[in-house]
Amino acid sequence: MADIYEERTYNSGEIGFGENPGILVVDYMTAFTDPKFPLGGAPLIERGVQNTARVLDVARRAGVPIANCWTSYKSEREMPHWKVQAVREQFIHGAPGTELDPRIYDETYDMGICKSGPSILFETPVASFFAKERVDTVIMTGCVTSGCIRASTIDSFSHGFRTIVPEDCVGDHDEGPHRDNLRDVGRRYADISSADAVIEYIEDWRKKNR
Amino acid sequence: MADIYEERTYNSGEIGFGENPGILVVDYMTAFTDPKFPLGGAPLIERGVQNTARVLDVARRAGVPIANCWTSYKSEREMPHWKVQAVREQFIHGAPGTELDPRIYDETYDMGICKSGPSILFETPVASFFAKERVDTVIMTGCVTSGCIRASTIDSFSHGFRTIVPEDCVGDHDEGPHRDNLRDVGRRYADISSADAVIEYIEDWRKKNR
Amino acid sequence: MADIYEERTYNSGEIGFGENPGILVVDYMTAFTDPKFPLGGAPLIERGVQNTARVLDVARRAGVPIANCWTSYKSEREMPHWKVQAVREQFIHGAPGTELDPRIYDETYDMGICKSGPSILFETPVASFFAKERVDTVIMTGCVTSGCIRASTIDSFSHGFRTIVPEDCVGDHDEGPHRDNLRDVGRRYADISSADAVIEYIEDWRKKNR
Amino acid sequence: MADIYEERTYNSGEIGFGENPGILVVDYMTAFTDPKFPLGGAPLIERGVQNTARVLDVARRAGVPIANCWTSYKSEREMPHWKVQAVREQFIHGAPGTELDPRIYDETYDMGICKSGPSILFETPVASFFAKERVDTVIMTGCVTSGCIRASTIDSFSHGFRTIVPEDCVGDHDEGPHRDNLRDVGRRYADISSADAVIEYIEDWRKKNR
Repeated sequence: MADIYEERTYNSGEIGFGENPGILVVDYMTAFTDPKFPLGGAPLIERGVQNTARVLDVARRAGVPIANCWTSYKSEREMPHWKVQAVREQFIHGAPGTELDPRIYDETYDMGICKSGPSILFETPVASFFAKERVDTVIMTGCVTSGCIRASTIDSFSHGFRTIVPEDCVGDHDEGPHRDNLRDVGRRYADISSADAVIEYIEDWRKKNR
Repeated sequence: MADIYEERTYNSGEIGFGENPGILVVDYMTAFTDPKFPLGGAPLIERGVQNTARVLDVARRAGVPIANCWTSYKSEREMPHWKVQAVREQFIHGAPGTELDPRIYDETYDMGICKSGPSILFETPVASFFAKERVDTVIMTGCVTSGCIRASTIDSFSHGFRTIVPEDCVGDHDEGPHRDNLRDVGRRYADISSADAVIEYIEDWRKKNR
Repeated sequence: MADIYEERTYNSGEIGFGENPGILVVDYMTAFTDPKFPLGGAPLIERGVQNTARVLDVARRAGVPIANCWTSYKSEREMPHWKVQAVREQFIHGAPGTELDPRIYDETYDMGICKSGPSILFETPVASFFAKERVDTVIMTGCVTSGCIRASTIDSFSHGFRTIVPEDCVGDHDEGPHRDNLRDVGRRYADISSADAVIEYIEDWRKKNR
Repeated sequence: MADIYEERTYNSGEIGFGENPGILVVDYMTAFTDPKFPLGGAPLIERGVQNTARVLDVARRAGVPIANCWTSYKSEREMPHWKVQAVREQFIHGAPGTELDPRIYDETYDMGICKSGPSILFETPVASFFAKERVDTVIMTGCVTSGCIRASTIDSFSHGFRTIVPEDCVGDHDEGPHRDNLRDVGRRYADISSADAVIEYIEDWRKKNR
């Protein structure tokens, strides 16, 4: 079957890994990773956490810069116009659910950032930190694929980074939107990859930079 | 059938129109609107142009600020890592396809902007222009729904604007991704509306502000 | 004596107060306000704290949005290339000196923000918060005039806001640079005003918006 | 004589050149470089143009990325609140004065950008272009030192770049503000250098990267 987008020259060629990686971890806060919360506990998100933890373990030993974020606000007055009730009511500084999943966050190593929009690069110091570190390749992990991952992937691309989305490191509440959004960004902005491929790249990078 | 996202409190309540509108028109350049180009001439995009032209006609008479953008670069060196061959090769300053569709652009009225990322609000003066105009409600038009419209809608939301996407003013190469992306943003960031509803709002706004 | 800049049409006309104020408070952290720290305790800064406290008291009662920031980082790796040793060594998350002066910060009312550059509007959610609040007039307070106030004033101007700097609400280590920078921004970007004039404007605004 | 700022640990240590340079050229448009315009023809600006031309010649042969900007708008409605009458009236797209000085701009090589605020990095694609090029060292040239150079230097620092200001490549209407602003940024954000030192660095860099 013909793909209308490929006929129109979308998805023509891979971007490829570059010379210097950085890792973004988006919103693996317990509000999404713990089933006790209204947004928490989807199987694809649990899978994403486990694979991301493997990637981060290798990345920290290699000295790769990591930015790890959550989303919270002082009050609804300070929020953008969220249509998600659980965000409006529960993503409040210090509230249960806003702490990062301990399998994901190492506060002695990672840059830890509170963001206010869907994208980890919107009005945060992350892009400047990565510029200082001379990152050219962004590994995108976190949740949810059809929300903050989509937004962060667009911004990573727009900032000029080679953007790699390991499919098994990002998660969503349901498979349809997960796949739809990987399809959309894979056609335009990013390479869709896997935790294993990313780990291999980081291991190789580490040897070269020793 | 249950909607997993609505169960998790997505799409809970409309945002609604605010006090002061502004209109964004994204990438209605002939590369997308003229069938002679590789990315040009999709029926949903033609429909979007026609409905957007109706909205803009009313908006200009009412004094609503409008920002109208295209995408082009000096060379591939200055571009982000686009996976779309036609963008890499043809979205070059001054090349055929980079001029705005004359049905859409009024250079005596609109802010005309060359953007470099998918979003009309990424590294452009548009958000500051709208802040100066005290816009709180952004009407999103243009193409393509699964690319630059998705990106611009996220950014409009992140900047704190009430964001309205008239479904018949945005277009895509195919219906599936068009619908998927309206679904994703309608759950989280924006109200999905129509050209007619937007025109009615602007007419009412004009009467109030006379 | 002729002023070369005024001959060249600088400083031609006041900007004036607009319809909706917001207040920025920059870096009134104890590192600057308490003499026990290497950067702390300059008389102009103490004067600025006292006058800003008066303005904030009136502003909170009037419902004016306020953003209050400090500067800190996890480590020197995450900082820009600061040439100020005390910043490099002491502006670390949670270190003594990074807490806001209690005369200035009301955590139940103000947006509280950790910034990473000199400007309170650089890579922070403040501009989007003010856009949502439809602020068009920014009152600039804090320290130091020749550093973060200069940077924040430029950004406030660039974002399209009417920018008012009450001279007695901003402070510096020494009078020369304090005056030099007010001169530079007063020629181009902002009106130089006073705490009393700002208080009068806010009181009038409050009556109109009752 | 004691320097109050150095006592407080300002200006402690040089930043130094890094591994990969990029050059910013700010507002060497004829409005500033040609004496026939109200803002044009100051001796320090003429000196800056001549030295910058020497640097750019070497930089282009070495393949260093260059971004060259001017400032213009469609109308006063789209401008921030400038207090400089000549900017409000004459910095209009296509008006005399808005073209770049031919001694400075090579449109076949440089990124050419129209900016809207004082800083070349404010709401422009320049930072993303430099991130893609993996620039870590920004050479700042242009005018005027107490306006757009000050703003651009702050932003370059905030973005994480090593920032070098060759004193004889930037110019102002008068010597006082020129020196005041180099003093302020040299204490905090940037190394003050010279055209000759920058040329030597670029020549060395070119040999290493051959």
